[in-house]
Amino acid sequence: MDYQQQYSAYQQAIETYLDGIFTAEGKPYGRLQESIRYSLLAGGKRIRPVLTLEFARLGGIDWHLALPYACALELVHNYSLIHDDLPCMDDDDLRRGKPTNHKVYGETLAVLAGDAMQPEAFRLILQARGLSADNRIEAALLLAKACGADGMVAGQVLDTLCHVEDEEGLTGLNRLKTGVMISAAAELGCVASNMPAYWRQQAVKYADQLGLAFQIRDDMLDVMGDEAVFGKPIGSDKDEGKITYVNLKGLDGCAQEVEKCTVAAKEAIRDIPDHDFLWELADRMVGRNK
Amino acid sequence: MDYQQQYSAYQQAIETYLDGIFTAEGKPYGRLQESIRYSLLAGGKRIRPVLTLEFARLGGIDWHLALPYACALELVHNYSLIHDDLPCMDDDDLRRGKPTNHKVYGETLAVLAGDAMQPEAFRLILQARGLSADNRIEAALLLAKACGADGMVAGQVLDTLCHVEDEEGLTGLNRLKTGVMISAAAELGCVASNMPAYWRQQAVKYADQLGLAFQIRDDMLDVMGDEAVFGKPIGSDKDEGKITYVNLKGLDGCAQEVEKCTVAAKEAIRDIPDHDFLWELADRMVGRNK
Repeated sequence: MDYQQQYSAYQQAIETYLDGIFTAEGKPYGRLQESIRYSLLAGGKRIRPVLTLEFARLGGIDWHLALPYACALELVHNYSLIHDDLPCMDDDDLRRGKPTNHKVYGETLAVLAGDAMQPEAFRLILQARGLSADNRIEAALLLAKACGADGMVAGQVLDTLCHVEDEEGLTGLNRLKTGVMISAAAELGCVASNMPAYWRQQAVKYADQLGLAFQIRDDMLDVMGDEAVFGKPIGSDKDEGKITYVNLKGLDGCAQEVEKCTVAAKEAIRDIPDHDFLWELADRMVGRNK
Repeated sequence: MDYQQQYSAYQQAIETYLDGIFTAEGKPYGRLQESIRYSLLAGGKRIRPVLTLEFARLGGIDWHLALPYACALELVHNYSLIHDDLPCMDDDDLRRGKPTNHKVYGETLAVLAGDAMQPEAFRLILQARGLSADNRIEAALLLAKACGADGMVAGQVLDTLCHVEDEEGLTGLNRLKTGVMISAAAELGCVASNMPAYWRQQAVKYADQLGLAFQIRDDMLDVMGDEAVFGKPIGSDKDEGKITYVNLKGLDGCAQEVEKCTVAAKEAIRDIPDHDFLWELADRMVGRNK
C-alpha cells in the first residue's frame, strides 16, 4: 500500500471513530455535543493520531486496536485548540478556514466543550478493547503527563503569559506546547503494541524532531502562507507581538532548520524496519502549505 | 474516635496530600502552579473526598490507600469551581471568602489552571499505590463519566445556558451539576475497597440524597445566609435570574425537603455496619451555614 492510501485508511478510520462519540440525540444539553462535534469533525490533518496508528502497526499489532488511544490524543489536541482560540487566550476568529468554536457557540459553551473533551479522552483509553489493564494504565498516564501542568498546559502558559526572547526559550516553549503531544502520539502507538524500549526512544526522538519542523514551518506559513489554504489568518503572530523562528532566523534560515529537523527525524528511526511511511510523512512536512 | 476527630483526621490527610502536588520550584511557568494552589488550598469543606475515605474505611481497607482517589475527585471539583466563576460563566468575584481565581490571576491563567487540574486528577488515580490495575481503571472510568459531557459538564450547560422552569428540571440539573460528583465521591471509596455491589448501590443512594439536601440548603443560604460565613455573595442566584428551590417551595418548604432528603440518605445506608459517621454527616447538612 502506498503512502497516500495508507494515510487515507488511517484518516478514514479516525473520522469514523470520532464521529461515533458525543452523539446528542434527545439530550436537553445537546448543544454541548453539537459544539464539540463542530470543532472535532472540522477536518484536521490528523497527523497525531496517524502517528499513533502507524507506530502501533510497526509494533506488530492490528492498528485498529490503537484507535481509542489515537483518538483520545486527538480529542485533547482539539480541546486545546478550542480553549487556545478563546478571547482570553489568542482571541482567534478563524480555525481551519471556519469560524472558531466560541464565534459560533459563544464563550461559555466553548469553555465547557473543551472541559468535557478531556475526561472523554481518558474514557476512550480506559475502555479500549483488546489491550490489557496495565497497557491502558500506561497509556492514560502518558496522556495525563503530556497534556498536564508540566506538559501542554505549561507550554500554553509560556506562550500566552511569558515573554520568550531567544531560540532556546522558543524551542522550550514549542516542545511543551506542541512537541510533547506529538511525541505522546507516537509513544501511544508504541505502548499499544508493546514496542521494545529502544525503538520507543527512537520513536520519541523522531516525533520530537518532526514536532520542531512542524512548528518552524507553521511560523513560516504565518508569514508567507495563503490564508485560504492555511485556514488561519496570515500575520497573526506578528499582530500578537510574539517572537517566532522567522524573527530569529529569517525565512531562509527557517527553511534550512526544517530541513535539518527532518533529516534528524528520519535518521532517528533508521533502525526501525518498514519505516517508509514515516520517512515520507517527515519529507512532506518540509513543503506543507497547510 | 468521635465524628469530629474522624473528620479532622480525614481533612488533614487530604490537605497534606493536596499540598504535595503542583509544586512550582524553579519552573518558568510556576505562576500556573501558584494559581492552582491558590484555589485548591483555599480550605474547602472537603465533603467529597471525606466521603471517599469513609466509604473506603467502611469497605475494610486502610483509608489512606484511597487518598489518591479522594483527592483526584476534589481536584476535578475545584477545577469546575474555577471555570464556573469565570466572567463567561457565573462571573463571580468571591469564593470561600476570597477573590476568585481569575480576579487574582486573570482569565487566561484561570482557564489554564482548570485545564491542567483534570489530567492531574487522572494521574493521581492511575498511579495510586496498593490498588490493582483493574481497580484503578474502574476508578478512573468512574471519574471520567462523572465529570464528562453526560455528567458534571452537562449540568453546567443546563445551569448556564438552558432555562429550567420546574422542580423536575431543577432536580435534574442539580443531579448532574453537583449530585453526580458527590455520588462518584462515595462510589470511589467503594471501588477502592471492593465493596459488595449491594452496599455500593446503597452508598450511591445515600450520596444522591445527600447531594440534593446539600443543594437545597445552598439555595436557602443564598437567600438567608451570612455572607461572611457563607463565603459567597448572598442573593447571587436572584441577580443571575436563576430559578432555585426557594422560588419553587419557599424557605419552609425547602427546610422540609432538606429534612426529607436527610432521612432518605440515612435510611439508604441503614444496613451498612458502622454507619454512625455518615449519619452524623447527613444530620449536620441540615443546619449548615457554609
